[in-house]
Parts: sequence; structure tokens; C-alpha cells
Amino acid sequence: MGDMGDITEQELGEIYDFAVQLGKDAGRLLMDFARARWEDQGSGEQLFSEKDNAVDIVTKADEGMYTLLNFCGVWIADYAMKDVEAFVKNSIEKKYPSHKFIGEETYSKGVSRDYLIGDEPTWCVDPLDGTVNYTHLFPMFCVSIAFVVSGKAIIGVIYAPFMNQIFSACKGRGAWLNETQQLPLIRKPIPPMPAPAPGGCIFSCEWGKDRRDIPDGNMHRKVESFVNMAAEAGGRDGKGGMVHGVRSLGSATLDLAYVAMGAFDIWWEGGCWEWDVSAGIAILQEAGGLVTTANPPEDHQNAEITDVQLGSRLYLAIRPAGPSETESGRQTQERVVREVWKRVRELEYNRPGA
Amino acid sequence: MGDMGDITEQELGEIYDFAVQLGKDAGRLLMDFARARWEDQGSGEQLFSEKDNAVDIVTKADEGMYTLLNFCGVWIADYAMKDVEAFVKNSIEKKYPSHKFIGEETYSKGVSRDYLIGDEPTWCVDPLDGTVNYTHLFPMFCVSIAFVVSGKAIIGVIYAPFMNQIFSACKGRGAWLNETQQLPLIRKPIPPMPAPAPGGCIFSCEWGKDRRDIPDGNMHRKVESFVNMAAEAGGRDGKGGMVHGVRSLGSATLDLAYVAMGAFDIWWEGGCWEWDVSAGIAILQEAGGLVTTANPPEDHQNAEITDVQLGSRLYLAIRPAGPSETESGRQTQERVVREVWKRVRELEYNRPGA
Repeated sequence: MGDMGDITEQELGEIYDFAVQLGKDAGRLLMDFARARWEDQGSGEQLFSEKDNAVDIVTKADEGMYTLLNFCGVWIADYAMKDVEAFVKNSIEKKYPSHKFIGEETYSKGVSRDYLIGDEPTWCVDPLDGTVNYTHLFPMFCVSIAFVVSGKAIIGVIYAPFMNQIFSACKGRGAWLNETQQLPLIRKPIPPMPAPAPGGCIFSCEWGKDRRDIPDGNMHRKVESFVNMAAEAGGRDGKGGMVHGVRSLGSATLDLAYVAMGAFDIWWEGGCWEWDVSAGIAILQEAGGLVTTANPPEDHQNAEITDVQLGSRLYLAIRPAGPSETESGRQTQERVVREVWKRVRELEYNRPGA
Repeated sequence: MGDMGDITEQELGEIYDFAVQLGKDAGRLLMDFARARWEDQGSGEQLFSEKDNAVDIVTKADEGMYTLLNFCGVWIADYAMKDVEAFVKNSIEKKYPSHKFIGEETYSKGVSRDYLIGDEPTWCVDPLDGTVNYTHLFPMFCVSIAFVVSGKAIIGVIYAPFMNQIFSACKGRGAWLNETQQLPLIRKPIPPMPAPAPGGCIFSCEWGKDRRDIPDGNMHRKVESFVNMAAEAGGRDGKGGMVHGVRSLGSATLDLAYVAMGAFDIWWEGGCWEWDVSAGIAILQEAGGLVTTANPPEDHQNAEITDVQLGSRLYLAIRPAGPSETESGRQTQERVVREVWKRVRELEYNRPGA
């Protein structure tokens, strides 16, 4: 049994077509919920009958700052997530009853935080990535659908309905924006990573939810890493990376999509879960990108650079790259991985209960 | 002579229609240049004949890390800026020969950094905002066109062609997304700013170009401010703002557009120029937003909160807001301005030569 299990090429193509259509339908559903907020004078509340549920969300809110605005936003986000995940899950069960399903909404309701993806064909789905953006109606939100076999994401579909951007890939069939423009969307031949990298690179990173003001805690380690990447070359005791730009979108899934596109050169993040990244990793790898661990290994200048485990919660992604005069494309990517590892701190994320 | 000078309401409507069409045409031109990069196997170089100009750009590059990728990207960006600005300028001169024109491209070639906008009808244009995004083909770039009379931006048009989003406003005629959806795009009645603000808010900020690793320099003051806004409430010696999210797009113009939309609650930045912000300010103010100075005044809890000067280079924008039970919408916005001023450092940007 190879990477593809028992799945034939023809079956794979059918699964891919199904996944793309499912992504489009799910994204449209997300957008319908969003529109309810600004089109209905009644703030969309009439759409939903089980009002009691709002209380669950209030008690769930870990930020202790519930406001009218967010109340409505988060509430609709919660309904949208449930509804979209149920739609995706039911569609898959109907079409492929033997496949396993892991969705953020279902998973986060459970107690275990174990990594549940095995060798069997598994769908790994985030019905709504960029939830905070969604509650504020900032367009950087999406649905993310991955099909995983033998532990590898081989199909990925990401649909951002507000921007009408769909990213998709299937192993061996290329990665695409809106099904027509092949990724990476940079000039051909695909350029190597810049010689002075991280100089010349767009660096994408996220502030995340862990904002505890603990000395040497995750937030401060992240910020120290961001500043190292941003500061002038020669600054920060030699760690200054002088990246071309620092971006934070608030969606791990779209960060990965834009790395696959070649718009971002580097994405570094800790704390995500497999449903946040599986589709993005499928698309990035098919486009020719590299994704490994965020945390610098012991001997980071010589350690072997291996593909990330889907459930590792620590990710460093590098865009697709072609060869330079002296290096292969992969070598230019690995050079950048080591340059990033030089400048970033180890983050503390693991799987509670695992 | 009022704010509108000698311009009648009918003339204003005609100027608005003209500006919207000009924005669309200019944005399409930007997109044509961008497409040249990924569609032409020859990397688009054949499109341009005056290759010598590339040298100018290299000598202009202040980041000392010229790479093949950026070379091509920046080079095309420079051509696009020139070409789009010339197109916009010529179109305006033909239609409104008596109006003054200030464009980034022309201005930055000059020696003076004086603020040039007076009382006479003036077009203030950035042919390409988000230049770094454009060179990397990250979709957050746009053209920005403002019409300013008596020192106030009364028409604004921002077009982001990759996302097909056009933001526009004319004094007294509302602010719009894609000409059909009125801004802010949040539920009606428009909610007040959150009670625990900056808690509950999306905070947008930019790392910018000044990355000098100088103790207490602009970069470090910015980062200290970002961390204060992000950290848990109670953290940072009471300065922790626990914002809902921190976003960095790399385009001041689009930051303002998303504040007008209500997707971002707060934008805080220093170092921009009037062409970066004029159209965004016109749209934000027409949508009901507030924009004042980024730097906390002496007595920041009591100081009068005045509208920003277009050329001040220091901006703090707050989204449109409705009344709460105890405050007017404006009062909720002013409360947030003071909460931000508590947490941010003074930035050092002024007008060289002015």
C-alpha cells in the first residue's frame, strides 16, 4: 500500500472535484451568514431560533470582554461554524461513508486533544478559519478542506468567499488559484529565495491568542522573533533580518495559501491545529513549497530539515523556489529555514492530554 | 467661500463620477502590469523598453539587499507607478485643467518635502499604495485618488484590483464598497465602540520602513505600543489592551478603507504622507469614522480631539460608531482615542525641509 492507499488516480480526481465543489458551497454558506449581519436591519438574529445557545458562547468567551458588537459577531460565527461543518460533514458521509472525518467544531467540543489522523482516508476540515476576522467582517476568512491519506494531505481546498479566491491542489495535479492560475503566481522560471534572505522576503506571522504577559512567555518570544526578523541587517546583535515586509492577516490557512502563491516568502507560527493547516500544506507542497517545524532544533545549522507533521502545532513555511546559479531550489529554501531558525525563539505549544 | 469653494453640488457629482471611473481605469492598468509578471514567460521584461531606468531603481533601493526577485518586482512596480500616475494626471488635466495635482511619484522625485495642499481644488493621488505587496503580488495593493478643497478631502476613491474591491465616498453622498454596499458594513444600527475597548477591537498597525535598531527609536516605540495594545488586560503595568486581533496589511490606504468598512476598529500609524491617506480619510469621515493624531498630546485624557491635518504624517483612526446607552457615537470613539493614547508611544516623523 503506497501513499495513496487503495485509491486509484481516477478516484482521486473524483474526490478532488468533489472537494472543490464542497469548498465553494461551504464558502457560500459562510458568506450568507456574514451577509445576514449587514443586510438585515434586525442584525440577523431572526435567522436563528435557538437563542439559548448564545449563552454557551458567552461562557466560552475566554477574553472576558463581551461587547454588543462581538456578541452578535461571535454568536453568528458560532452558528456559521456549526452549520458549515455539519453541511461539509454530511456531504462527505453521504458521498464517502467509509472515510473518516475530523472537523474543528466537533473536535473542540470533545475532551481529548490527541492527534487523531491515522493512515486511513480522512477529511480534515476547518469550517471557518479566521474567526476573529469573520466576526468583524474583515475579508480574510475562509473554509479549509483537506483530504489526508497515510498521514499526508494530498488534496487541499481553501475558499475565501468575501474575496472570491479559491486555492486548490491535488497531489500530482498542480496547485491553483481560482482553478485557472497555477501557483506559485510569480514569474517563470520561479526565482530562488533571495540571496540576502530573510532580507528581501515578506514575513508573515500572527500575534495569536496567547497574550499572557509572562516574562519569556510565548507572546514575548514571538515578539522578540518578529523584531529580529524586522530589524535592520546588523542590528539586534547580528540577528536583524531586515525583511521586506511583516504581515499579519489573522488566518493561518490564508497565510499558507499566500505562501503557496509566492506572495509571502516565509510564514512562522505556533499554536495552530491540523485543521488550520492541512489544506494549506497540501497546496503549498504541491506548489513546490517547504514546510517544517517552527522551533529551531538543537544543531539548527546542520540538522536535517524534514517535512512537518500535520499535528505538530509548530510550522515554518517557505514559498516555492527555483534554483540559483549555485544552489537547487530546495537548497535555497533550506538556507532560508536556517536563517529563520537563527532569529526565532522556541515556542511552547503542545497537545494537552497527549 | 465655503468648504466647497465655487463648486456646485452638480459639479461635485460629476467630479465624483469621474474620480470613480478614473480609479477603476487606473487599477486595471496596475493589474495589467502585475499580470505581465506571471503570465509572460519572459518575466514581462519585453513590455518595457527603457531598461536603463532599472539602474535608477537599484540606486534608489535603500535596503541594500537587491535580489533577482525584487529586482524584477520593484522594477515593474516603478514602471507601473510612473505609468499609472501619468495616466491619472493626464486624465485630470484634460478634464479639469484648472485643478492642482499632487502625486506620490512626481512629489517624491522633487527636493522639497513641504506640504503643498492649499485651499484651491487639488487632486492628491497615490498611483500605487502597498508597493511592497505589489512587488510580491500579495493582493493588498491599490490606487488611491482624493479630491481636496479648502484643505479637506471631500472625494475619495480606493481601488484594489486584485481583490476587485472599490471603496468610494463623496461628501454628503455616503461611503460605499463596490458602489452598492454602504459603509460601514456592520449591522444596523451601527454599534458603539466596545465598552472594554481596546478590548474587543481589531487593531491595525504597520511595521513600516524605519527598522533602525536604535534604543527608543521609532521601531522600538512602535513595537512597545503594539505589545501594550495586544497584552492581556492587567498586563504591562496596566497598559495591556487585550485587543481582539492585531493585523498588518502593508497598505496604509487599505488600512483606512477597512476602518471605514468597520472591519478594523483602530488604526494607528506614523510616517505616511498625504497621498497615502487623503482618499482613505475622505471615505472614513463620510462613513462616520474619526481620524486624529497618532501621538498622545500632553494632557491626553482631557485634550481636545481634533480632526487630523492631511499632512501631519501621524494618524489614529477609529471606525464609525453609534451611540451606547450612556454615550453618543462620537463619545465612544473619543473614549477609544484616549485609551489608545494611554498605550502608545510618541513617534518621530516630521517633514524634512518643512
